Amino acid sequence: MSSTAGQVIKCRAAVAWEAGKPLVIEEVEVAPPQANEVRIKILFNALCHSDVYFWEAKGQTPLFPRIFGHEAGGLVESVGEGVTELKPGDHVLPCFTGECGDCRHCNSEESNLCETLRFNTDRGVMLNDGKTRFSKNGQPIYHFVGTSTFSEYTVVHVGCVAKINPAAPLDKVCVLSCGVSTGMGATLNVAKPEKGQAVAVFGLGTVGLAACEGARMAGAGRIIGVDLNPDRFNEAKKFGVTDFVNPKDHDKPVQEVIAEMTDGGVDRAVECTGSFQAMIQAFECVHDGWGVAVLVGVPGNNDAFKTHPMNFLNERTLKGTAFGNYKPRTDIPTQVEKYMKKELEVEKFITHSVPFSEINKAFDYMLKGESIRCIIRMDA
Amino acid sequence: MSSTAGQVIKCRAAVAWEAGKPLVIEEVEVAPPQANEVRIKILFNALCHSDVYFWEAKGQTPLFPRIFGHEAGGLVESVGEGVTELKPGDHVLPCFTGECGDCRHCNSEESNLCETLRFNTDRGVMLNDGKTRFSKNGQPIYHFVGTSTFSEYTVVHVGCVAKINPAAPLDKVCVLSCGVSTGMGATLNVAKPEKGQAVAVFGLGTVGLAACEGARMAGAGRIIGVDLNPDRFNEAKKFGVTDFVNPKDHDKPVQEVIAEMTDGGVDRAVECTGSFQAMIQAFECVHDGWGVAVLVGVPGNNDAFKTHPMNFLNERTLKGTAFGNYKPRTDIPTQVEKYMKKELEVEKFITHSVPFSEINKAFDYMLKGESIRCIIRMDA
Repeated sequence: MSSTAGQVIKCRAAVAWEAGKPLVIEEVEVAPPQANEVRIKILFNALCHSDVYFWEAKGQTPLFPRIFGHEAGGLVESVGEGVTELKPGDHVLPCFTGECGDCRHCNSEESNLCETLRFNTDRGVMLNDGKTRFSKNGQPIYHFVGTSTFSEYTVVHVGCVAKINPAAPLDKVCVLSCGVSTGMGATLNVAKPEKGQAVAVFGLGTVGLAACEGARMAGAGRIIGVDLNPDRFNEAKKFGVTDFVNPKDHDKPVQEVIAEMTDGGVDRAVECTGSFQAMIQAFECVHDGWGVAVLVGVPGNNDAFKTHPMNFLNERTLKGTAFGNYKPRTDIPTQVEKYMKKELEVEKFITHSVPFSEINKAFDYMLKGESIRCIIRMDA
Repeated sequence: MSSTAGQVIKCRAAVAWEAGKPLVIEEVEVAPPQANEVRIKILFNALCHSDVYFWEAKGQTPLFPRIFGHEAGGLVESVGEGVTELKPGDHVLPCFTGECGDCRHCNSEESNLCETLRFNTDRGVMLNDGKTRFSKNGQPIYHFVGTSTFSEYTVVHVGCVAKINPAAPLDKVCVLSCGVSTGMGATLNVAKPEKGQAVAVFGLGTVGLAACEGARMAGAGRIIGVDLNPDRFNEAKKFGVTDFVNPKDHDKPVQEVIAEMTDGGVDRAVECTGSFQAMIQAFECVHDGWGVAVLVGVPGNNDAFKTHPMNFLNERTLKGTAFGNYKPRTDIPTQVEKYMKKELEVEKFITHSVPFSEINKAFDYMLKGESIRCIIRMDA
């Protein structure tokens, strides 16, 4: 046991006091883990677009003050009652969604939407007692998706913690705990292109590029990147993109453009923007008979997916996925092993790095569209 | 070679002179088969709802005069140039959709939507020369979906003819060439429920009952039949239906009723009505994480499928199918073999039988909702 076990830890955290306002590095108190919880010393974060989205909180009823952060790696500091699968010193990636191992979803080969620990962006407290583990001068600070990794120490439910190979560099593999796995898994686990097939990916941010990378790993013959920003294409080539379509360059709907490029449609499409128009385009651009489209991007509350039913009857399939259908505790360690065996690259997703004290710079890079992943070094 | 080979055959056919008007048994001329065509002596028909739908021709721009009929069994009378896989005397089921064996679809394990011979309800002529093989006193009579089996002889493209076991009773297995296989295949080949799972079937006509039967054959634990007509339930029990839901009996949307009955949703749903509202209900009543809904019923031209994209992102799948994904020449003979081995029942679909001279009675039974399948005996 570490000397801090059972004690409140005072440490630095980047607190979001208000929506859209720069984070403030504060000294906060982090309570000890309760039953089925783990306290983790965070060493590295990567900034994911969801952090920015819920920090901006546009059109939301947000919880503040809050500690964001959910793509991270660290070491177990101490464990709460009943935690047997982890011990202090274990190398871990906390994850924004969980795996209780016991529910119908965890027992299903197809689902990763754990009944108990499914991601919840509205809840700002721990499940055990409905309270926060963070506070400053007695004022509670809310959690974010059960991870809140923009803190030197955080408390996470054991079902949301993946134990990984201690030889893996945490400043690299931390990106596997959200965006990269989300896109890669959407292609590899859900769209499942066959060797030589044509895959269209809508949106070339981190998730979309990871979807392209998944298509490249699956041996896709052609990877068509679709994005409104022409600057994305050069970067996208590194992720296997062979063709670029900018919907702005065409008078006809992009699904028609893609059908013409591909003799009737792509074999697989992966939608990573969250725009409902792009969802419809992604579905309608897959070939009849065998085409599969996969939705990944998260839509607005009032959006609708709409198409003529004949597009389905002509034997197209539409599926959606969260976190690339990976089960966090079962599959993320395997993703890390693939990285260790060089079957999976993460370095090319990492374009920037900042010390924790400059975390707001990471937000700027993301907002300007300059970064794919920016690593935040917690020791600096 | 039969003595009629190469000759025009005069025989009886039930001609639809006008939309919605009783068919008239006429003596018609049937030209010999051209290249890649087969002339078939039809022994038995079954009436399918699509015959009635295109005969009523509501809201359509229909072709008349026309010979309907597409669920039938018979014997090859003669074959055209280049036909090597069939010979006079072979027992066959003509099929409304084809399998050239050569195109991308025929080479795909997933598709049965043959590029060349895909069903076409608008075309009333043969592909070879764009003309009809039927006439009366020199007036051409149009074909229907390439089969036009309401005639003692018909001409069909060889790619639309399934050669079956000559020991199979044609008055029974003829029903396997459309509706029964469509529903059964939707469940067995596309929805693919696992043993013990819950399946909802929307619409308890022939196709829906066959979808239920498919679910029963797959070992479904619970089969929920959904229909607006309460009389259907008793019949449906023979096809494995365990629960009946009449949307009219409930104030809340039927997808909510089904979710409550099944702890969150069924594992599989099959939509066999063609109503776009039912399509949306069928999709939204499957369980998140692993639920699969399959669309079978054919929608109207102006219908739209509409749902919130989160219903997909919560890991539901929506697929469509035509003819239960069966490839006619490859799979229908296998369906017949299953019948011969008693792995598949067809008798319970057959509720009525009429002589050819009383074919309009079969239309009445269908329109009144009294029949499932009515066999039409061509020799009487």
